[in-house]
Amino acid sequence: MDKFLETAIEEAKKGRLQGGIPIGSVIVYKGEIIGRGHNKRVQNGSVVLHGEMDAFENAGRQPASVYKACTLYTTLSPCSMCSGAILLYGIPKVVIGENKTFSGDEALLKSRGVQVDVVNNKICIDLMESFISAHPELWNEDIGE
Amino acid sequence: MDKFLETAIEEAKKGRLQGGIPIGSVIVYKGEIIGRGHNKRVQNGSVVLHGEMDAFENAGRQPASVYKACTLYTTLSPCSMCSGAILLYGIPKVVIGENKTFSGDEALLKSRGVQVDVVNNKICIDLMESFISAHPELWNEDIGE
Repeated sequence: MDKFLETAIEEAKKGRLQGGIPIGSVIVYKGEIIGRGHNKRVQNGSVVLHGEMDAFENAGRQPASVYKACTLYTTLSPCSMCSGAILLYGIPKVVIGENKTFSGDEALLKSRGVQVDVVNNKICIDLMESFISAHPELWNEDIGE
Repeated sequence: MDKFLETAIEEAKKGRLQGGIPIGSVIVYKGEIIGRGHNKRVQNGSVVLHGEMDAFENAGRQPASVYKACTLYTTLSPCSMCSGAILLYGIPKVVIGENKTFSGDEALLKSRGVQVDVVNNKICIDLMESFISAHPELWNEDIGE
């Protein structure tokens, strides 16, 4: 498996062990991870720190030239908010672990020129299926439903 | 002036006094403010806490039924990330202080059924014009440019 997707999955599992929603993300610049994170809804009571947002936050303030050369990896198809952050910072490429359990705003990303690669990795799917079946109310809250 | 836009402007001014980017936001449910905030890029080194995102974060975890009955007020036209958060949580109405100094993703919001009211309030415009002219580099960083 791609080592960066593997690290995103590690983040998702870390979140799950903390009792959180198992979605992880890493941001990669020139072959190095500059930010990594996982969903913090349960752990921090955060409604903005989805996995991708947490990775952005942990990457910290970066110049536009860095963002524009990054690839973002996420274990799950990015929702509207995370897709919007990807567009705001001009991330040109997104690798998505899976979009079977949730289909985010991939069409918007593509329509604005972002390269979107969907892997449909079994570990990513299993993590979400098992979480959604155990905690449907938390998952619905996380996607505003 | 609308009292909720006035509170969003207070938030923007609070941010400016802290040396931050002067953008504020409030989220209103059934005539009461349930969340308020301002841009925290400078103060917290945050790349996700735009004014609107900070208001969401301070409103905390809310059921979908609450978000779907809220109005979000923001002193400045919401960027792609903040527009995405508005879509994720299904906020049906957004009141925008101004879109002269920056034009966000209003077309996307409208295309998904969000009511978008633009006031073009002079205080909002003055706050941003004066900030952008004093700190163009900070402003460009905030919009990923």
